[in-house]
Amino acid sequence: MKQLRVGILGGGQLGRMLLQAAANYPVETFLLENDQACPAAHLCEHFAQGEIKDFNDVYRFGKQLDAITIEIENVNVEALEKLESEGKKIFPKPSVLRIIKNKILQKEYYRQHQIPTADFIVTHSADELSSHTGLLPAVHKIGEGGYDGRGVALIHSEKDLAKGFNAPAVLEKMIPIETEISLMIVVNEKEEHAIYPPVEMHFDPSLNLLDHHLCPALLDKKTLWKAEAIALSVVRNFKSPGIFAIEMFVDKQGDIFVNETAPRVHNSGHHTIEAHYSSQFDMLWRLMLGYPLGNTKPILSSVMVNIIGAEGHSGPAFYEGLHEVLKIENAFVHLYGKNETRPGRKMGHVTVLSKDRQDLLYKANKIKRTLVVKTEKEIE
Amino acid sequence: MKQLRVGILGGGQLGRMLLQAAANYPVETFLLENDQACPAAHLCEHFAQGEIKDFNDVYRFGKQLDAITIEIENVNVEALEKLESEGKKIFPKPSVLRIIKNKILQKEYYRQHQIPTADFIVTHSADELSSHTGLLPAVHKIGEGGYDGRGVALIHSEKDLAKGFNAPAVLEKMIPIETEISLMIVVNEKEEHAIYPPVEMHFDPSLNLLDHHLCPALLDKKTLWKAEAIALSVVRNFKSPGIFAIEMFVDKQGDIFVNETAPRVHNSGHHTIEAHYSSQFDMLWRLMLGYPLGNTKPILSSVMVNIIGAEGHSGPAFYEGLHEVLKIENAFVHLYGKNETRPGRKMGHVTVLSKDRQDLLYKANKIKRTLVVKTEKEIE
Repeated sequence: MKQLRVGILGGGQLGRMLLQAAANYPVETFLLENDQACPAAHLCEHFAQGEIKDFNDVYRFGKQLDAITIEIENVNVEALEKLESEGKKIFPKPSVLRIIKNKILQKEYYRQHQIPTADFIVTHSADELSSHTGLLPAVHKIGEGGYDGRGVALIHSEKDLAKGFNAPAVLEKMIPIETEISLMIVVNEKEEHAIYPPVEMHFDPSLNLLDHHLCPALLDKKTLWKAEAIALSVVRNFKSPGIFAIEMFVDKQGDIFVNETAPRVHNSGHHTIEAHYSSQFDMLWRLMLGYPLGNTKPILSSVMVNIIGAEGHSGPAFYEGLHEVLKIENAFVHLYGKNETRPGRKMGHVTVLSKDRQDLLYKANKIKRTLVVKTEKEIE
Repeated sequence: MKQLRVGILGGGQLGRMLLQAAANYPVETFLLENDQACPAAHLCEHFAQGEIKDFNDVYRFGKQLDAITIEIENVNVEALEKLESEGKKIFPKPSVLRIIKNKILQKEYYRQHQIPTADFIVTHSADELSSHTGLLPAVHKIGEGGYDGRGVALIHSEKDLAKGFNAPAVLEKMIPIETEISLMIVVNEKEEHAIYPPVEMHFDPSLNLLDHHLCPALLDKKTLWKAEAIALSVVRNFKSPGIFAIEMFVDKQGDIFVNETAPRVHNSGHHTIEAHYSSQFDMLWRLMLGYPLGNTKPILSSVMVNIIGAEGHSGPAFYEGLHEVLKIENAFVHLYGKNETRPGRKMGHVTVLSKDRQDLLYKANKIKRTLVVKTEKEIE
């Protein structure tokens, strides 16, 4: 059989888990990534060394393929547009990436489509911030290039103004958050969709990184329906097949505000590997290969804990407490095969399944206390 | 971290699924296999081209590793014994492979340890068969080299005697089988064990290949306990860590006879990938890396259907009906990435999860009617 040739831009943990799932299907896999020792490199069939932000590298890589997907938004969109015009399928469409990768365009997209989102203004330089103190407390988000907590500054009051970015950015009013949720939706080329139950996200306040999430989020029916409707309207207006994570704030009144959207497999969907019948990775392959969508229902409730490089440890990674964590019933460990740990670096995750929310929270805390990514030196 | 270096002998579908599971753990993977285009080749970190039956190839491969496992018994045991004597960990121990890979030694092992098994005699040439007609109807099994239905002859009556093998073999009395079951057990280096629920196996009578199996097998409590006790005694007497599939016959009286044992991940455990909390592949990694054993409990009942190359089709494989099968709720497809189909060749499998046994049987039949592996030519 002539198998579909599908390429992934970026070889981190998302690419790694996507390639683990790929081996179930008839597909020939390609990977474009600079780092030959990246987490996904050894799991693809054809590795191409190159820069995902470079026009020529992406275009040359895509020329040989039937379809392309991404594991990060920050890729060369021009090359993907050219490839799309030449008949290659891109998941999601480059037009979506243009909107998403720029926080200004993303916020304007929500406004244009009457999608509830926090009030904001666009700033072009740090100087401008002082004339918008009426919006404080607020969050300043750089237009392009932010990722995993980088490119975001909290401006609680006027004395934080100096933290702002001297570049095109969005100044966004802080929402008094009761809960932060993420909802994943997959849309296929026939515009059919499948929705995963929302997860309740808990962030590490110092790293501004997802610390752990619980699935399903504790929401009353009405709030859940509203969240689903809003997330669907975010996705439908893109007019693009793909898998999307829509991160939303829920305030005390149950009002919902879209925070941001990721048009790809996402950290807030990692629990779906064991806790749901069809995982986000399985789902993206079903989508790209033109198969029917899978079952998004949970098998059991779950918690996902990110395993993040400990403070003060930079160098070859050592996983302290792994044995203890694997003793926990229905705890599933995923380590990403990164040789070097750094403070705040995502090194892996653990998903735990249980019927009981308290049990999940207890085990999440136990995992955070137990599994620590250090460097070898300190251990020996 | 200095990761454990673990090698697999053989790169078929078992190696493929083992490597999919490996990417969750901190382990450096190696594969020895002649065929560079084999199902597992692209998923390992280090591929070594070589012959798993050749002393030098296996020894040279194993020298660089911490541990080795197999996906087929028919490997060079002498090389593994030498590697074991030099401190390498072999799962299972070479002493187990010596017994298992020879059907004569395997049957004698059962007899020696008072493990119930069908009556048998050892034959050395085809001529001898005529002096053992008292054992008929019987099965003649060649001592070494049989696999997946090859090397087995049914001798119903004297007129079948010519089908016997002119080589060292076992002539085994046929058991009036009510049910054929397989039970997987994992044993770690501390001699702790975990038992999967037995599956009920249904064979293709013409191919003598596993057609489908249901999990759990319908057995009354007493028969289940007996099966577990017998399987455990098979495994414990090996005095070796590893994962084992013990295939057993159950007759009308509920008496149990061990048919044969596979000291490795096995076709009768494929359903564990989605239908159990910890799969057989996950379990073998836990074992080899020295982690606690996982949870063998089922999430739901399941059926596993082998996808076998259709009669009259040899050449590049095309999977007819894949789209239809993926429409079935909680049907999980695994295709093994074999370029060429042949009649009777195992090309993939499908697992379906459901609470209801009738529903599972209905869906298994639907899958067998729907998903057909043909060659491209016939389709176009």
